[in-house]
Amino acid sequence: MDRLIEKIVKMSNPSVVGLDPKLEYIPDYIKKMSMDLFGNTPKAAAHAIFRFNMQIIDAVCDVVPAVKPQMACYELYGSWGIRALEKTISHAKQKGMYVIVDGKRNDIGPTMEAYCQAYLGDSELFLNEKYSAFGSDSLTVNAYLGSDCINPLLKKCGECDKSIFILLKTSNLSSKEIQDEKLISGETICERVGKMCEEWGKNCIGKYGYSRVGAVVGATYPKELKNFRQQFPHTFFLIPGYGAQGGKAEDVAFAFKDGLGAIVNSSRSILCAWKKNDCLPEKFAVEARMEALRMKDDIISKL
Amino acid sequence: MDRLIEKIVKMSNPSVVGLDPKLEYIPDYIKKMSMDLFGNTPKAAAHAIFRFNMQIIDAVCDVVPAVKPQMACYELYGSWGIRALEKTISHAKQKGMYVIVDGKRNDIGPTMEAYCQAYLGDSELFLNEKYSAFGSDSLTVNAYLGSDCINPLLKKCGECDKSIFILLKTSNLSSKEIQDEKLISGETICERVGKMCEEWGKNCIGKYGYSRVGAVVGATYPKELKNFRQQFPHTFFLIPGYGAQGGKAEDVAFAFKDGLGAIVNSSRSILCAWKKNDCLPEKFAVEARMEALRMKDDIISKL
Repeated sequence: MDRLIEKIVKMSNPSVVGLDPKLEYIPDYIKKMSMDLFGNTPKAAAHAIFRFNMQIIDAVCDVVPAVKPQMACYELYGSWGIRALEKTISHAKQKGMYVIVDGKRNDIGPTMEAYCQAYLGDSELFLNEKYSAFGSDSLTVNAYLGSDCINPLLKKCGECDKSIFILLKTSNLSSKEIQDEKLISGETICERVGKMCEEWGKNCIGKYGYSRVGAVVGATYPKELKNFRQQFPHTFFLIPGYGAQGGKAEDVAFAFKDGLGAIVNSSRSILCAWKKNDCLPEKFAVEARMEALRMKDDIISKL
Repeated sequence: MDRLIEKIVKMSNPSVVGLDPKLEYIPDYIKKMSMDLFGNTPKAAAHAIFRFNMQIIDAVCDVVPAVKPQMACYELYGSWGIRALEKTISHAKQKGMYVIVDGKRNDIGPTMEAYCQAYLGDSELFLNEKYSAFGSDSLTVNAYLGSDCINPLLKKCGECDKSIFILLKTSNLSSKEIQDEKLISGETICERVGKMCEEWGKNCIGKYGYSRVGAVVGATYPKELKNFRQQFPHTFFLIPGYGAQGGKAEDVAFAFKDGLGAIVNSSRSILCAWKKNDCLPEKFAVEARMEALRMKDDIISKL
């Protein structure tokens, strides 16, 4: 997690821009250009998405340390969408940003190993040659399958200086249905998963005191953020739910200790700032940057 | 689930071939041809995977009702791998097979909606035009996020005559770490998820008595298979862990009632039958078919 934390410290900005581009977020002039080039096809949709992302990245890369592409938005356009994701990740990396792929992946043994290679390491070609498929820095993970899912990730994170974020308490309303259920031990399920995160991370704690095993906790649950910050001192939090979903800077402040300990995500508020502010479509990237700076100031002011 | 069950009944075969193609499973002559065409590249790896899959599908499509591609094996080769998956699904559909995409996807709201569109419905292009990205029949899902994850899937399954399989009790050893934990109500977590599956499925029960909301239960846990078959009478089971992972026909028999109620997956045993039997690489598809028939007879003999 050190590489991410260093970028956060350098920019004094514990926030990440979620790249969840839906076509409705993208200005018409970009969509028209893609359609003129490739017709009304998935290739054109993916082209528009990449051009949109590229300009967002260019506009925020000197003030925001990380981006978080949401896999579903790219899988929506099949192999063309995945091509747009590859190019987006590559562009973000060139601009020095830390890339957290939000895929919530989960599987076991050799299958999880394949996800590790795809997102955090290298995929094997013929004759033992290798190449990096996505080349991202971090992956979100669902731990319902237990250590068999997490162990291959721990190994890969160690080898390749990467990190993961495990779903603990998600920002949605129905997260309570499973995550808040009480075990006979008195803990809730998400508390138990939190303890497992500390355990999984205990041998890979970096110089800031946080391990490579982070956790996802929603901004919409400030009480949990506060408790978990105390209970899980080595677990760095990725916080969705700020902004459009209702989470406030006062809420996410509970996830921090001495100014560190978490990174707060915002997607729609930043990508759609140009729509909300009713400004020229051509200004979408400028508006995204202004919103990202506003978000940074908002969060920092409450720490 | 009716479309799947009809195919199972017609072929008297409650099994599914897992398409988890690793390069080591693929005969050298296929890999060489791909490498001659496209060099040592991800495009070549994906090409070899598709050609391998195509021949497996051709060899089993008249005796096996379904295939289950494992997403990780395709994501391993980025957009090229996803292209191979698209072509594999399309080929399997042309051959009349039911396609269960094993992606264990999970997310909320509009994000889950995007996964639904990608795998079970149609993706939106420009000007409200639509296209089918993957066109599969079913998707495996992780329910840790609760109803917010499942509701968009239920809606899409109803609209498009599709199904889902929710992770209940997975076949791996460490599935106990979270799934077997006891709640204060006395149930284990996987039992609770099973009850939720019955509840989610209650308004979409088909003519065979099973809902569109299936569940994944490992062949390696026969006690759970037996209990869950009784406790969750409307939930159709997808059973991994038969064969290479140690599950036997006697074990999976517990998941059935009156010859129905489950579909059993085998991947490695079928894809690698040619290696295990030490036969000519050119015979890999014939060997896969023979192993698929052997598996069918084995399962049927114990029902």
